[in-house]
Amino acid sequence: MLYEHEVEFRVRYQETDAQGRAYHGNYVTWFEVGRVELLRAAGHDYKSLEADGVYLVVAELSCQFFAAAEFDDLIRVRTTTARSRGVRIENHYEVFRGETLLATGRSVVACVDNTGKVKPLPQWLRLSKK
Amino acid sequence: MLYEHEVEFRVRYQETDAQGRAYHGNYVTWFEVGRVELLRAAGHDYKSLEADGVYLVVAELSCQFFAAAEFDDLIRVRTTTARSRGVRIENHYEVFRGETLLATGRSVVACVDNTGKVKPLPQWLRLSKK
Amino acid sequence: MLYEHEVEFRVRYQETDAQGRAYHGNYVTWFEVGRVELLRAAGHDYKSLEADGVYLVVAELSCQFFAAAEFDDLIRVRTTTARSRGVRIENHYEVFRGETLLATGRSVVACVDNTGKVKPLPQWLRLSKK
Amino acid sequence: MLYEHEVEFRVRYQETDAQGRAYHGNYVTWFEVGRVELLRAAGHDYKSLEADGVYLVVAELSCQFFAAAEFDDLIRVRTTTARSRGVRIENHYEVFRGETLLATGRSVVACVDNTGKVKPLPQWLRLSKK
Repeated sequence: MLYEHEVEFRVRYQETDAQGRAYHGNYVTWFEVGRVELLRAAGHDYKSLEADGVYLVVAELSCQFFAAAEFDDLIRVRTTTARSRGVRIENHYEVFRGETLLATGRSVVACVDNTGKVKPLPQWLRLSKK
Repeated sequence: MLYEHEVEFRVRYQETDAQGRAYHGNYVTWFEVGRVELLRAAGHDYKSLEADGVYLVVAELSCQFFAAAEFDDLIRVRTTTARSRGVRIENHYEVFRGETLLATGRSVVACVDNTGKVKPLPQWLRLSKK
Repeated sequence: MLYEHEVEFRVRYQETDAQGRAYHGNYVTWFEVGRVELLRAAGHDYKSLEADGVYLVVAELSCQFFAAAEFDDLIRVRTTTARSRGVRIENHYEVFRGETLLATGRSVVACVDNTGKVKPLPQWLRLSKK
Repeated sequence: MLYEHEVEFRVRYQETDAQGRAYHGNYVTWFEVGRVELLRAAGHDYKSLEADGVYLVVAELSCQFFAAAEFDDLIRVRTTTARSRGVRIENHYEVFRGETLLATGRSVVACVDNTGKVKPLPQWLRLSKK
């Protein structure tokens, strides 16, 4: 599995708020996009994962905001897998506009079956750091 | 089934956009809230409907905007059932802030089973106008 | 100004709902993305427009849904300008997944100043059909 | 200023995702609703704050998820102010369905002026713990 991946997109008008910036909650969606694209770049797609009965649910989430994104800004999300073993994957995120770091984040997703019961990650999703 | 129902709530900051008003797409969500609460006021809840294999999917939607809603405005959505028979329900919506009409809308939902196949509305959901 | 433009993107998990499909309200956001990208393809960006005191606010909106989009589907939005003169622009939308037409839509935006007062479209935004 | 406040609302269909639960990012919006209602219960409204040139922007955010919320669940958000002095307010959140704790969270908002420059909190927003 890849350790790092970047994805770019523009801030939608729908994502702005009355302060004239991207609403902070959207970064959570952008982290999700980062996770999904990291997985795709590793040759998998999350949709097939769910079709195989492997669901990843968010257990922990954090974000620090340093500068605002605005409508139409070209945003770059760098997603890194810090740890992936047992029943959990930990990802880190950096959100950039050009060279400016706007925000950093971290999430932990847990692997569950279709009843919500925690189960071990598939072997190929585990990360063995050397 | 009731023909008309009103529900009130405040505009969330998340729902605003960079023009300092509620993003127009949120009215679609507000119509959904209106439909769900109209159903509840009639003694039913949409969650049980889906549990019984009755899914209502939106087939048509329209909206006219007359005045803007802003953050924290107390909004009132009046939902009316104009027609409910065969496989479809037609609802009309009026969105108010106080006495000011902000928007009107209309939706048609179709009744489908859990495979997405159209099926007749349950008898109790049908509306017989006299 | 261009009459037609297409933009492609994937359905985000955030955009899905409990029916396992893209929530119908998201098409309104996708239409917005289509309008913004049509404008950009014509050599303009909507952000500069607002900076110049030209605001486009949605006055009318409609949508017909034919088939569902699901998580991760690659969606293509074709935006066409049907009319652009006086104080209003009328756009039409077609949303595809591959060759399958999922939905069509129509919006009318009105040109207003920063106080919300209607004003004529800038000359270069007007469309003269021959 | 009040130290604690509770607000109740139902999960909207728009807030669900394809896993049949409330999308995790919506908790961030629910925290916002909690903050706004805590402020209102203390006799103030955030809209007037911005009108007075006092903007509160989110600087830090975290959330832990224990159990899923589903469509139509009646959710209760308990918001507590842990600290409010200098230029920052720290809030804690607990999200319940009945007696079940679904999630906890924490945010830090910073006080800025209309140019985004950090400035001290108004005196009345500060919290003096005894």
